[in-house]
Amino acid sequence: MEHKLLESIELASDVKKLNIEQLNDLCMELRDEIIEKVSETGGHLASNLGAVELTVALHYVFDSPDEPIIWDVGHQCYAHKILTGRDITGIRTEEGLSGFPKSSESEHDIFAAGHASTSVSAALGVAEAKKIAGDDNSVVAVVGDGATSGGMIYEALNNAGRSGTNLVVVLNDNEMSISPNVGAMAKYLAGIRSKEGYFRFKDNLEHFLLKIPVIGKGIFSVFRSVKRFFKDLFYSSNTFEHFGFVYLGPADGHDIAMLTRTFRRAKSIKRPVLVHINTVKGKGYEPAEKNPSKFHGVAPFDRKTGELKKVSGYSFSSAFGESLCKLAEKDDKICAITAAMTDGTGLRDFSEKYKNRFFDVGIAEEHAMTFAAGLAAGGMKPCFAVYSTFLQRAYDQVLHDASIEPKHVVIGIDRAGIVGGDGETHQGTFDVPILTTIPGVTVYSPTSYEELENSLEKAFAGEGVQAVRYPRGGEKNVPEKYAGKYHDFDYYENGGDCLIVTYGRLFAEASFAAEETGASVLKLGKIFPIEHEAVEIAKKYKNVLFFEESVEFGSIAEHFGSDLRKCGFEGKYEIHCVCGFVPHMKVENAMKLHGLDCESMKNAVKEALK
Amino acid sequence: MEHKLLESIELASDVKKLNIEQLNDLCMELRDEIIEKVSETGGHLASNLGAVELTVALHYVFDSPDEPIIWDVGHQCYAHKILTGRDITGIRTEEGLSGFPKSSESEHDIFAAGHASTSVSAALGVAEAKKIAGDDNSVVAVVGDGATSGGMIYEALNNAGRSGTNLVVVLNDNEMSISPNVGAMAKYLAGIRSKEGYFRFKDNLEHFLLKIPVIGKGIFSVFRSVKRFFKDLFYSSNTFEHFGFVYLGPADGHDIAMLTRTFRRAKSIKRPVLVHINTVKGKGYEPAEKNPSKFHGVAPFDRKTGELKKVSGYSFSSAFGESLCKLAEKDDKICAITAAMTDGTGLRDFSEKYKNRFFDVGIAEEHAMTFAAGLAAGGMKPCFAVYSTFLQRAYDQVLHDASIEPKHVVIGIDRAGIVGGDGETHQGTFDVPILTTIPGVTVYSPTSYEELENSLEKAFAGEGVQAVRYPRGGEKNVPEKYAGKYHDFDYYENGGDCLIVTYGRLFAEASFAAEETGASVLKLGKIFPIEHEAVEIAKKYKNVLFFEESVEFGSIAEHFGSDLRKCGFEGKYEIHCVCGFVPHMKVENAMKLHGLDCESMKNAVKEALK
Repeated sequence: MEHKLLESIELASDVKKLNIEQLNDLCMELRDEIIEKVSETGGHLASNLGAVELTVALHYVFDSPDEPIIWDVGHQCYAHKILTGRDITGIRTEEGLSGFPKSSESEHDIFAAGHASTSVSAALGVAEAKKIAGDDNSVVAVVGDGATSGGMIYEALNNAGRSGTNLVVVLNDNEMSISPNVGAMAKYLAGIRSKEGYFRFKDNLEHFLLKIPVIGKGIFSVFRSVKRFFKDLFYSSNTFEHFGFVYLGPADGHDIAMLTRTFRRAKSIKRPVLVHINTVKGKGYEPAEKNPSKFHGVAPFDRKTGELKKVSGYSFSSAFGESLCKLAEKDDKICAITAAMTDGTGLRDFSEKYKNRFFDVGIAEEHAMTFAAGLAAGGMKPCFAVYSTFLQRAYDQVLHDASIEPKHVVIGIDRAGIVGGDGETHQGTFDVPILTTIPGVTVYSPTSYEELENSLEKAFAGEGVQAVRYPRGGEKNVPEKYAGKYHDFDYYENGGDCLIVTYGRLFAEASFAAEETGASVLKLGKIFPIEHEAVEIAKKYKNVLFFEESVEFGSIAEHFGSDLRKCGFEGKYEIHCVCGFVPHMKVENAMKLHGLDCESMKNAVKEALK
Repeated sequence: MEHKLLESIELASDVKKLNIEQLNDLCMELRDEIIEKVSETGGHLASNLGAVELTVALHYVFDSPDEPIIWDVGHQCYAHKILTGRDITGIRTEEGLSGFPKSSESEHDIFAAGHASTSVSAALGVAEAKKIAGDDNSVVAVVGDGATSGGMIYEALNNAGRSGTNLVVVLNDNEMSISPNVGAMAKYLAGIRSKEGYFRFKDNLEHFLLKIPVIGKGIFSVFRSVKRFFKDLFYSSNTFEHFGFVYLGPADGHDIAMLTRTFRRAKSIKRPVLVHINTVKGKGYEPAEKNPSKFHGVAPFDRKTGELKKVSGYSFSSAFGESLCKLAEKDDKICAITAAMTDGTGLRDFSEKYKNRFFDVGIAEEHAMTFAAGLAAGGMKPCFAVYSTFLQRAYDQVLHDASIEPKHVVIGIDRAGIVGGDGETHQGTFDVPILTTIPGVTVYSPTSYEELENSLEKAFAGEGVQAVRYPRGGEKNVPEKYAGKYHDFDYYENGGDCLIVTYGRLFAEASFAAEETGASVLKLGKIFPIEHEAVEIAKKYKNVLFFEESVEFGSIAEHFGSDLRKCGFEGKYEIHCVCGFVPHMKVENAMKLHGLDCESMKNAVKEALK
């Protein structure tokens, strides 16, 4: 397909020069470009296809970057990237763009986001800044309906509606986040959606109401007048209006003419407006329309057939789900909780087999954690499965609700460590530092599927908060002698003066490095609290090298070093950790860059022994 | 006043034996007891007086602990403590009860809480556990309207309404949290409250609606029938009903007969119910009714006059507020943000002087932080003033929204360190460990009012997230030679082999300990990142003793020790930190217990020099 219009656009504002027919053609070209490029490298597809018309209409009506567009979660911003002069070839790879908005890429991205439900807070901040400066440009936040289960959105709407700013919140409603949505808000939105013609009806109603005479008595007498009564009911019947927003919608999110009209009206209103639009996830690409969950985030695929080129195999997530099912079969107190990640965390089977013990709470990690503590207080054995990066949102809940008075809650921490293509916003390099600040928390970091099951068993047999963390992807091979031991720590003595201490995924790298250099290896299985005996073993070495897939401050490496010092260790101690925020790149490349691959370990051992 | 009825109650269930008149008398006795005891020791007063009838009615209708009552925030639980056999004499002191629910005190407290908006999540967990076990007892959550600005409540309601559990949420609406409420939800609740007779009206309406004939055409033709139309509007006009709750209310929260009737009905419904009751903060004690903010948390007072026996003086909070005003006068970009703590954080003056640059977002720390980042992205210089313990709720927002792409946000962290009578749920002993995990964050910890202003100036001149933390209460005296230096670190060399390293409030203790023992002192002003030169100074000593008002894992002491090791330090290094969760006791006693007072420091120095 030729991309004539796309090629004609140099600045985002060039979109404004097109007529409706051309805008429709531009959308086709954008869709074609997105499908083509994502089929090559993988990436978020369904959400991006759903947001094409919406993006074009936004740039047609608003003047980015003076009227900035802030994308919630951010993975639906591909069309926005293209229209603001960026080439999405190789997106999410080291050579290409980030899969999320990024300020360093463009002045049109003023706020990065990979976590949900933050955009209205951010946009309200920018809008208040503009109000103070006397700048009456609009600020746009684009929120998927999936993000409406997150409490931050509610906190922001509670403040925004009556702020008097020129904030435009676009609710991009495709009836699902990654999977179909849960919760009351999702049902509520579905209720609005199903009222056909509601949009125009409300426009006309206002006019009609102004003509109604006052009746006075009877059932309505508690209200001052029927007019007031009707207006109250109509205009209060919408939750967003309770919040003080002008509500426009629902509008067809693939009808460019309707979208531009609606956005123009929103722009003209000069107070907070919520525009509710209905879109179809995967729109315009049949395989994605049919199976939007599968095409939410995809590996490279065959554009013609929609077949994935690389079917994702068995992983730590699968092993976690399988182990949890096994344990739940034997123990009917075991429950599983997810925050909108049933598939991502490997809980699909559990959700089907143990329906009454499975809870998908929507994107709501804070609630999920305290809800888990409540289940524990009620006598159940809950397991909250969550990505490391999203657990960050529930720090206070782990501390305040589950640890001050200890509740026996197991946390299955998926995507712990470096995650690859998602980049900075999704790295699992902070869970260890924050969990270890909380008194009473125990953390396991298994190296294999078998050890994962073993760790889960220990966690369910333990007390208080018990976390089991495992990386994205699958288990790694290790030389035979390093396999199959799952104690709180396992010590592989190879003679010599150098000891590598590590845990989790890095153990495989360490075992090969040890084989080649003669270093010994201390593998931590229960990584926290640190076992005194493990420290005593390390103390005997002249050189102790700790390798860890975490930021350094608050790492196990730091705690272990502190314990070593307390034991009177007199040797040399080195910490090899992740440094700073890690951008999007292959996991193995990030490992090399941060000195955590086998080769780097070998070099570090050789250097230490010099 | 005699407490005849109160004395007759041995078990919570004894309340059930009383008649309405006796229940009213019991409330008077409870009120008398609460006023008496709080006037002696201080504590939360206004909220407890408002919740007396509510508490009595709950115990009259529900069977605690089989039907547990979970108190949101928890500081309104004094009547509950008394009715469940506890003596509140000396509450919040070491000798007395905790000011919050506490499982170790009673089986009637199944969930502790000192942070807001957690109760519905916890109660839903317990209720789901009961549902799974086939136990149809109710679970009650009592939520103040102030907590409804917190996103967690929304997340929980979103899940609870359609859960099919026997959950009863009591919304204790007194039109304020600590200060009057802000935001759309507060206005919305006020709207409901003002509709007199709404309660009974809705009961009758349902009956009436069933008789209405179908009209069909006209303006209503888009709805299937007028009946459906009316029901939709009426029953959807309440936000809580959108969430799937049966809504009962608003009821007079001081009318025992009405409360018991309403709770009985709630108990009988066997699905999630929200009971909305109106109460008066401070009810029954005139000084508190007139000034509920002042009597929210009070020092001991004269019962007759309502006069506080100890007027709280100038404090770090006052100094912070004053400094921020000074800076804001010179720089019109400076904004202040609080999460419902205008007075607590010393921002009253700022809020009046710089109205358009002041934002009280309600109890909503997550939003507050990202909103601040938005203001920064819009060109302002925001300062979010927040208690250390509540900042825990915004960890992910500091990391994801303000640090991955650095936004220049200043955080004023009040109540940093040990807080005293509030106990475990409010200790400010975690902010340093969690903030230092986040790349790019700078932390200051001033020792005096003057240094606080100096630190704030540096923070506003800096980049990225800049935190300035200071304790509850006032500045401490130091020997003259230790005063008035405000560099990133200040070194007081006294000769000898021992160096005390510390920061913040402990510096005063350290300076006196140093004077008596001859130890030198290294005071950190900018505590993170750690200045290399400071480490180099410490390296020269044989004994380095770090004293810190923080938990140990992730502390500056640990990071400093790690840096010392990297520099090749060969001396002895000791970390003296806070251990575990600190219960309610005087700050000075906690300091002693954790070895952080002057005496302990002297002993540690002497021990080290042996």
